[in-house]
Amino acid sequence: MSKQTILNKELPKGIGPNVSPEAFTNNKRKVFLFGSPSYTNIGDQAIAYAEEKFIRNHYPYYEYIEIMDYATDEGIQIVKEIISEDDIVCFTGGGNLGNLYLDIEEDRRKVISTFKDYKTLSFAQSVYFEETEEGDKEKKKTQDAYHQNRHLTIGTREQQTLEYVKDTFDSEVMYTPDMVLSLDIEPQELEREGVLFILREDKEKVTEEKFISELREWVEQEKGKRTERTDTVLHDMDVIDYKDREDQFMKMLNRIGSSELIVTDRLHAMIFSIITKTPCVVFGNSYGKAKHSYRDWLEALNFIEYTDQKDINKLEEMIDRLLQAEPNDIDLKQDFRPLRDYFKK
Amino acid sequence: MSKQTILNKELPKGIGPNVSPEAFTNNKRKVFLFGSPSYTNIGDQAIAYAEEKFIRNHYPYYEYIEIMDYATDEGIQIVKEIISEDDIVCFTGGGNLGNLYLDIEEDRRKVISTFKDYKTLSFAQSVYFEETEEGDKEKKKTQDAYHQNRHLTIGTREQQTLEYVKDTFDSEVMYTPDMVLSLDIEPQELEREGVLFILREDKEKVTEEKFISELREWVEQEKGKRTERTDTVLHDMDVIDYKDREDQFMKMLNRIGSSELIVTDRLHAMIFSIITKTPCVVFGNSYGKAKHSYRDWLEALNFIEYTDQKDINKLEEMIDRLLQAEPNDIDLKQDFRPLRDYFKK
Repeated sequence: MSKQTILNKELPKGIGPNVSPEAFTNNKRKVFLFGSPSYTNIGDQAIAYAEEKFIRNHYPYYEYIEIMDYATDEGIQIVKEIISEDDIVCFTGGGNLGNLYLDIEEDRRKVISTFKDYKTLSFAQSVYFEETEEGDKEKKKTQDAYHQNRHLTIGTREQQTLEYVKDTFDSEVMYTPDMVLSLDIEPQELEREGVLFILREDKEKVTEEKFISELREWVEQEKGKRTERTDTVLHDMDVIDYKDREDQFMKMLNRIGSSELIVTDRLHAMIFSIITKTPCVVFGNSYGKAKHSYRDWLEALNFIEYTDQKDINKLEEMIDRLLQAEPNDIDLKQDFRPLRDYFKK
Repeated sequence: MSKQTILNKELPKGIGPNVSPEAFTNNKRKVFLFGSPSYTNIGDQAIAYAEEKFIRNHYPYYEYIEIMDYATDEGIQIVKEIISEDDIVCFTGGGNLGNLYLDIEEDRRKVISTFKDYKTLSFAQSVYFEETEEGDKEKKKTQDAYHQNRHLTIGTREQQTLEYVKDTFDSEVMYTPDMVLSLDIEPQELEREGVLFILREDKEKVTEEKFISELREWVEQEKGKRTERTDTVLHDMDVIDYKDREDQFMKMLNRIGSSELIVTDRLHAMIFSIITKTPCVVFGNSYGKAKHSYRDWLEALNFIEYTDQKDINKLEEMIDRLLQAEPNDIDLKQDFRPLRDYFKK
């Protein structure tokens, strides 16, 4: 498809949902975001939301064009036709670089190896390949794909991943907090009621159901507080397209900000608690995503705490402390400096 | 026009150019911006640009709806039909609260007195009524209009204006820097060449043409640098509508960021120099807008200097110093805290 063809006909769905068609043909420097999520994980939706804000706020002179995950193959064809020498190709960040979410990893390999001659960034990730035959095989495939691209930078969001990436790939590595922490949203002043449990129901889950039941019962009986259980992955819809991203993200923030306390094993439930100034107790997942983000960046927050403690009596003291804290702020702006400098060059 | 009518027919041009029609009828809390400029003053365009970024970044759960200046009367009628109790009515900031730009001041009076029962904000202004019979008469009209609204807050951007507003109006007063200083744009790395003179050609002008000619000649002869003269008010077009705002603002930033030095009597040429890290010498206007913003907020910047000095030999030392400075940063984030808190309530 030539530039002229693109000008003359409608683009396929999911190619540049955030721009008008002129964006593909003007003479601005372009930043392409591949892998823009259409699935219902609000954490990943919030990451893409924050990536767009970051580019649009700091580099309004660039054209920022998203390609939805379901349009990756068509998107690659179109971008190949219009890309210029100094454009930048990105793949969205998150916690899916590895062998647990292979459909996404396969798309990332494809994008990175196709655009091997262009400045390429994988936004900040937690990287995890299982130490199994299967995990090793997929790691090898990822190495082979990424190493074709000598202009690749791999973003990492915990020290653990930073070290792993340095050991595993020949690419440049960048280290910043999770993108959602770059947002600067004022928390709404909402009535708060009850304790919201936000818990995984996926392959990363390690918190036992028995413990969760005991904890909920204890909160209701001993603390006299209503409890509810939910997840940051929505199950009542199949797709969140670009145009619904902000509303769904706001709905989740609203729900968390209306709670007195969050109990979670989800990294982004913790981050949404930070944004909404909601006290939060965080448990781990299978490979330490939330734990390491907490330890590396967030330990100074007085209303958020990571724990592996499963003794309810000992948890009580922590929960009482979190509920009484006057939520403090931390300033991570300087920690995003590597990313800001990256896009200037 | 009822909500249903608004849903069913196209809105007049200039009403909500920044939103889709659903924005008028959804159940979000709304912030209306009146006076969104269509005239070619890039300073005022940048203010409206920054106001939108501010609301969208910090309060993405609100609906932010602009009404262009040329659609004020129709906009008032439509907003009257759809406004809800806790919505917020704003008028854009700048340097036109007073008797020098009466068409704008008349619109502001109209908006403030019409929406007298709603939370109302005039974004940060420099206020200036001439001390003449005409100035006094207009000041009285403005007082009468504003005082109808007991929910009005008047934003001010210099101490001088803050004191003046306290003495002149019974309204609440807020004090922050100019809105454009709330942006966080990464400067592009551009080739720099020559000295750009950005000078008023309006009723606020006090810098003498003879001095300007001498200074330009001196820069060319003694410093061996090319000079050009321009203004932040464009004269090669009549209108900048919402959709062209960002591009025109970026074009101006690009031009300033491609210069080695800016010489100006324009507040926003100084502010654009700060954004693009371009050394800048600032002279005054008729009522001290640039001077007071500089003194109140910006004196710590090592590459920007305000002066009343007109002796070229003495200016030389200053210019040499500015050209050699490694541009520093100042963080005004906390100075916008009153505005952030204002929109939370």
